Amino acid sequence: MSKQVIRNFSAGPAILPQSVCARAAEAIQELREDGHAVAADGIGLSVLEISHRSPAYEAINDEAERLCHEVLGVPETHQVLFLQGGASLQFVMVPFNLRQEGKVACYVDTGNWSSKAVDESRLLGETRVIASSAESGHDHIPELPAAEAYADASYVHITSNNTVRGTEFVELPVLAGGVPLVVDCSSHIGSRPLAFSRAALGYAGAQKNLGPSGVTLVFIRKDLLARPLAGVVPRYLRYATHAKTPSLYNTPNTFGVLVLKLMLEWLRDQGGVAAMEELNRRKAGALYNVLEDSSLYTPHARPGSRSLMNVTWTLGGAPEDERAAMTKRLLAAADAAGLVNLKGHRTVGGLRASIYNAFPEEGVRELCDFLREFERTA
Amino acid sequence: MSKQVIRNFSAGPAILPQSVCARAAEAIQELREDGHAVAADGIGLSVLEISHRSPAYEAINDEAERLCHEVLGVPETHQVLFLQGGASLQFVMVPFNLRQEGKVACYVDTGNWSSKAVDESRLLGETRVIASSAESGHDHIPELPAAEAYADASYVHITSNNTVRGTEFVELPVLAGGVPLVVDCSSHIGSRPLAFSRAALGYAGAQKNLGPSGVTLVFIRKDLLARPLAGVVPRYLRYATHAKTPSLYNTPNTFGVLVLKLMLEWLRDQGGVAAMEELNRRKAGALYNVLEDSSLYTPHARPGSRSLMNVTWTLGGAPEDERAAMTKRLLAAADAAGLVNLKGHRTVGGLRASIYNAFPEEGVRELCDFLREFERTA
Repeated sequence: MSKQVIRNFSAGPAILPQSVCARAAEAIQELREDGHAVAADGIGLSVLEISHRSPAYEAINDEAERLCHEVLGVPETHQVLFLQGGASLQFVMVPFNLRQEGKVACYVDTGNWSSKAVDESRLLGETRVIASSAESGHDHIPELPAAEAYADASYVHITSNNTVRGTEFVELPVLAGGVPLVVDCSSHIGSRPLAFSRAALGYAGAQKNLGPSGVTLVFIRKDLLARPLAGVVPRYLRYATHAKTPSLYNTPNTFGVLVLKLMLEWLRDQGGVAAMEELNRRKAGALYNVLEDSSLYTPHARPGSRSLMNVTWTLGGAPEDERAAMTKRLLAAADAAGLVNLKGHRTVGGLRASIYNAFPEEGVRELCDFLREFERTA
Repeated sequence: MSKQVIRNFSAGPAILPQSVCARAAEAIQELREDGHAVAADGIGLSVLEISHRSPAYEAINDEAERLCHEVLGVPETHQVLFLQGGASLQFVMVPFNLRQEGKVACYVDTGNWSSKAVDESRLLGETRVIASSAESGHDHIPELPAAEAYADASYVHITSNNTVRGTEFVELPVLAGGVPLVVDCSSHIGSRPLAFSRAALGYAGAQKNLGPSGVTLVFIRKDLLARPLAGVVPRYLRYATHAKTPSLYNTPNTFGVLVLKLMLEWLRDQGGVAAMEELNRRKAGALYNVLEDSSLYTPHARPGSRSLMNVTWTLGGAPEDERAAMTKRLLAAADAAGLVNLKGHRTVGGLRASIYNAFPEEGVRELCDFLREFERTA
């Protein structure tokens, strides 16, 4: 039976290294025989059935935490937490924890995710959008305004990579006046060195470069854990609650944290974030070159704001209904060629190739060839 | 090499059927070869790397939802949701969503988990404990008071099985005056038929009878989704937000929902909750008999309130320090015999055997034999 290689451009949950899947599967089966867990060299139980307070799980948790510092570059000044609820719950926890009396929560609007964060913040207190690229369809990262625009901020929140629009901050900004920077780095953490020391708080849904869905990595500068809260905050939604016995206040997604640890080990073994940056620049560069050289394709994001992780584009040069039909044809032809999940996010349309760390370079080459060929015969 | 069978009495994450672990491991590896996902009969990708908006995942999500109705007996009047954050986040979401202006949130206090629920509720508004067994160390389920005690309640919350104390409601109560009943049934859902039609809202951390940690099953009577909210509630914390596109408002714990689905299929194939009740009564009955017949062991929970899932006891008849030393000896001897995780919850001490659905009957027999032998030679 002939088998076709599938190239999975899903924006998340996304492609994982095969070795990580294999080791995750082993951990689920570990040392079980004849219907029972059997003790031998290992812990004698599946990772799915051990208590989160067992030495075996605590070792997983501690090592995952350590690797976040070592591999992702989270500074030792920050507490690492593995929470649940995705970035969407962080949209709530950030204002609950970091708002301060008499100050304003400030946000940079770069599209879908940041606007959800703004919406949650507005429910809890005064909120200000200090920069936005909405007027041009969020096709770039807007300039940060002068310091006066956020001098009264309790914090400034950015989405450092936007999966839907395909935009990315080149660098994490340095804020004036010691205002805490909050970074939703869900979709590019681990893709290259990032200056996390500039962030007071960072968070990332793990289901892109860190592996599994259902785990949110949070890192918070330890001094912020002691900052007084503005208003009533449920205990479960306080970072301090989860920092006391790190990530073990209640039962975590134990399997998810294991997969995250496996992903970080894989990342380390690939040469870490520096090696990833090189690879990711090659991968994204090749794809942007095809789009730039084309008269059919138009990259959505402007140069200088282009994401290395999520490349977005549209088909240009024809009336809208014709473009839509051609986009559909392209997606069908790509699917048939094993290039799957290239459809743009449902809210913006067009096309999107998510090429996270684990997405292989040859898959990008195949997409480049496919796109050139499609244009040639279109 | 000789191998010892491990009997895992963990309170959760807890023992799973081997077939569920095997199928979960397969789903992680599914059809991957040579470092790439390979399309054949299946979806061609690991369950860990498919989008939560893909047809493959939506099929998992829909089937898991359907099985909650079919296998667990969740009425069709209720919306099933797969959320994150465990019961601890429900301690927050329940008062946020169900509090009503001018009414009081009422709770039955049966120990550790209900008191955490009470603490979160108190932060958000007026809260009343209408029944408690605190004075006798939460050794029983207290009687519900007369209707007047909760006539002004926005809801009444119970923990229908207490994992720490080993107590269990024989039946879910019927409340007077149409007051909504809220049930934290984390640690006995699926263990026997439960009259969920009496509950306006039920929730369960899945890591006991439903399998994985990191998934919370919630079911809510649909009319409650439209009830006006008292005060400001973050969007992410509203049940209505998650009910709109059931369980897909944001990225769920996709692997966790898959394992939950596998667990429900296993439960169905075992004969469902009715067959489980028979088995669980045999298992727990055998263990309580040993404790009752003993002069060394004292069951913590009173007859009529004893949990079929979590059996708790202490060693009696000696001064406290001697008892503590003997408990330690018992735990060490049990460990050596492959009977692991029998230590009582860290807040109450003593001993606890969690014998959820997947815990095999022969494992209970082994524990019974061990306990009798330990007493004989103590």
